[in-house]
Amino acid sequence: MRHLIDWHLLPDEVWEGRIEAALRAASGPRMHPVAAGRAIALVFFNSSLRTRTSMEVAAVRLGAHATPVTPGQGTWGFAWQDGVVMGGSEAEHIHEAVGVLSRYYDAIGVRLFASLTDREADRDETKLHRFVRAADVPVVNLESAFWHPCQALADAATITERFGGNPAGKKFVLTWAHHPKALPQAVPNSALLAAARLGMQVTIARPEGYQLDPSVMAHAHAYAAARGTTIEETDDQAAACDGADIVYAKSWAGALAYEVPDAEDALRKSLVHWRVTPDRMASTREGAFMHCLPVRRNVVVDDAVLDSPAAIHLRQAEYRLYAQQAILTWMWDLPDAGR
Amino acid sequence: MRHLIDWHLLPDEVWEGRIEAALRAASGPRMHPVAAGRAIALVFFNSSLRTRTSMEVAAVRLGAHATPVTPGQGTWGFAWQDGVVMGGSEAEHIHEAVGVLSRYYDAIGVRLFASLTDREADRDETKLHRFVRAADVPVVNLESAFWHPCQALADAATITERFGGNPAGKKFVLTWAHHPKALPQAVPNSALLAAARLGMQVTIARPEGYQLDPSVMAHAHAYAAARGTTIEETDDQAAACDGADIVYAKSWAGALAYEVPDAEDALRKSLVHWRVTPDRMASTREGAFMHCLPVRRNVVVDDAVLDSPAAIHLRQAEYRLYAQQAILTWMWDLPDAGR
Amino acid sequence: MRHLIDWHLLPDEVWEGRIEAALRAASGPRMHPVAAGRAIALVFFNSSLRTRTSMEVAAVRLGAHATPVTPGQGTWGFAWQDGVVMGGSEAEHIHEAVGVLSRYYDAIGVRLFASLTDREADRDETKLHRFVRAADVPVVNLESAFWHPCQALADAATITERFGGNPAGKKFVLTWAHHPKALPQAVPNSALLAAARLGMQVTIARPEGYQLDPSVMAHAHAYAAARGTTIEETDDQAAACDGADIVYAKSWAGALAYEVPDAEDALRKSLVHWRVTPDRMASTREGAFMHCLPVRRNVVVDDAVLDSPAAIHLRQAEYRLYAQQAILTWMWDLPDAGR
Repeated sequence: MRHLIDWHLLPDEVWEGRIEAALRAASGPRMHPVAAGRAIALVFFNSSLRTRTSMEVAAVRLGAHATPVTPGQGTWGFAWQDGVVMGGSEAEHIHEAVGVLSRYYDAIGVRLFASLTDREADRDETKLHRFVRAADVPVVNLESAFWHPCQALADAATITERFGGNPAGKKFVLTWAHHPKALPQAVPNSALLAAARLGMQVTIARPEGYQLDPSVMAHAHAYAAARGTTIEETDDQAAACDGADIVYAKSWAGALAYEVPDAEDALRKSLVHWRVTPDRMASTREGAFMHCLPVRRNVVVDDAVLDSPAAIHLRQAEYRLYAQQAILTWMWDLPDAGR
Repeated sequence: MRHLIDWHLLPDEVWEGRIEAALRAASGPRMHPVAAGRAIALVFFNSSLRTRTSMEVAAVRLGAHATPVTPGQGTWGFAWQDGVVMGGSEAEHIHEAVGVLSRYYDAIGVRLFASLTDREADRDETKLHRFVRAADVPVVNLESAFWHPCQALADAATITERFGGNPAGKKFVLTWAHHPKALPQAVPNSALLAAARLGMQVTIARPEGYQLDPSVMAHAHAYAAARGTTIEETDDQAAACDGADIVYAKSWAGALAYEVPDAEDALRKSLVHWRVTPDRMASTREGAFMHCLPVRRNVVVDDAVLDSPAAIHLRQAEYRLYAQQAILTWMWDLPDAGR
Repeated sequence: MRHLIDWHLLPDEVWEGRIEAALRAASGPRMHPVAAGRAIALVFFNSSLRTRTSMEVAAVRLGAHATPVTPGQGTWGFAWQDGVVMGGSEAEHIHEAVGVLSRYYDAIGVRLFASLTDREADRDETKLHRFVRAADVPVVNLESAFWHPCQALADAATITERFGGNPAGKKFVLTWAHHPKALPQAVPNSALLAAARLGMQVTIARPEGYQLDPSVMAHAHAYAAARGTTIEETDDQAAACDGADIVYAKSWAGALAYEVPDAEDALRKSLVHWRVTPDRMASTREGAFMHCLPVRRNVVVDDAVLDSPAAIHLRQAEYRLYAQQAILTWMWDLPDAGR
């Protein structure tokens, strides 16, 4: 069964084939109704604008149907633990909920953000794995604790398009940014691995205390080693941006968030200068600015950057649609558009 | 106009025809687009997972469109009483709300759970009848105070499939179960009548104080009399399960819930041993376990039963989809799949 | 780009063409799938029953897909101001939110009710214009602070049908009505301009303090002058209804609501006799009763009027569907039904 938990669990030819399929979908006809009569349930345990709408339109363009399901809004809350005695507020176990959706739908998408309170459960994707285990149809991860494969594919296709199909060797800067809230690491993890897998020279700019998880860094270094590139880390955002081809901004919570949330909050709030400004962009090699959205203007990045031609964040968001068309045809083993 | 308030209001040939149509839909092709361009509004005054999603997919498979509407979530609250001076919080009368939906949709589904506070209004289905009166298109009951005809049809088709088309004479045990909350009787009422109408030997196992409504029992006895079968009642769950072909578990509120809710709550909470265990299933005639879902694991039934081959609750849930395809084609007088 | 902010911004031939298209859609076939594969996002910052469902069904009938989006319900809240430092609770700027939807959808609908606290922002449609500026696809106003063009077109088509295609010269009475809440003026503004543009003799009946905005009255007088008709105003509801062909009831907030809300509330609540009664209708010229809905029974209008043959409010609501089909084909420059 073709689950999409994350790309690093799948071979290079699948990853590369999906980038190509997303690029073809971008220039293909609006309708490619190879999935007529199929349906996908989109289960959102967390908010969504882009993911829900782009997946819904991707389904429509394939002739399929998408149903958003928001647990707790017009549905029951779910129990997750094996063996639990369900005498509390949860009326249904995830085993039955997902089992039933598997009988009605041909695939299930699920969004399950990081807890930011239980590091092991987040790193192990405990809830996501319980969800997948209960499914009898392919499951696509719509952002879990550590991964956001739909975003990763859209990012890779956007970057590939930007560099005329040859992103290898370009300088990709993933920069941490200030933010009023502690955010999960799924997007930076995924963007890092996408860039590394594209053979880009990667620099991660982040303050002390904001290193990404060692397990993720190990994957990135393995990709780099196989491609003869490097993954550098620095706490100097200005130096990192120097000569960059892509500046990819994102805030995420530091490691302290799990143990001493108040301390992480105080540290993060002191780092207001971690903002992408026109000055930062001026030192790039006519670099492009990317962000997964939603983005906080004048906190993460200045208006003057977002409203300049260097910003390709809307094209990046548009690629979510094409990426997800490519994911659905792969999950269902259907022909891609434009072949 | 082909409303579906409940099956006991419709002749045997309609009921039997729908069971057949559901069975055919189960083995039919995914798409049977005889209702292209039609639409159904699904008005949920209460939560739903299965009903909403299975009805939405049933519509898709027929080429139709379903719109879930959740009063109070992005819509107004409704007034129900005739002659009311609408100076309070309700902005629209059900007469106009349903009248308008009748102009846009070819059918309307409605979920209106029991109040559990006004026995006469629940038994008389007062709100449902007001809703239907305001409609100019067929209305399908998606679970009302006393009836759940979509569930009843799915149950009947599941049981018919289980016994190779010959459920008559098999032993059907409807057993009450412990539950932390007082629940309506729509499902046990409907399951009881479905089994009786299939010509099964029915035993209802329930503690003292948990008898079903006399009006419902009268219907069941009438079906049994016409089929030469019996409806037995007992407060001994173990004895009831002995030799059972189907054990159908469900919790529901006792009669005291209307008059002295606290007393019903205390009584119900004392009945923790009313739980379907492997021991109970061991004394059946290789019986199947059924439940309408959502089910509380290890409260209503043990994991060891739900996770065993005897449990057919997911197949039962799957039949919701096929049953509702059969209901829609009947309501709209369209050809069934597989004919 | 064919935005529909309001009809008074568009030439007569577009307005008249859409009335004709709505009338043709009313008698046309259910399906007219000229927009297959297209999609429209419907962004509701306020509640909706008719608008959401009728737009969804209109899309279905054209072969298109509609996605309702409710900001704050499963999505982020949005920032609206240019140059804002987004350190607060809003996670996304309207610029990005609408920009992204423009990449997935072929049109965007938006509902943005009046604030009733900032008169200039309401009159200038500040938020609506920010929304439109961020869009790269046609935007249709689903009711803004001052305008409700979908309702206006449905009203015009209903009236045109009522008078066999010749509404010019008929007496149209727009009457204010009592209501427990202060309501925006979008509907009375739109109904007034629709009737004036149809060449009807218009009388506005409203208490002192409930004059419509001078900018709206100026538009109405300009239409009347061009058509040789008049726009009269009176505080005598009974006299206004005398000889009326249409009595169009609607409550709206008085001018005081912006400056002294409590005083407006007290004044409005004293005006309980501003209710359309059978007596009022008896003095009409077999006049029809109209209301945009939702309507508060026995507050705005008596049951005896709403339940009489004179009431055409459900036909009026039905025309929302046909009007919106006509709007979508125009926005997308597609052939109308029945041509």
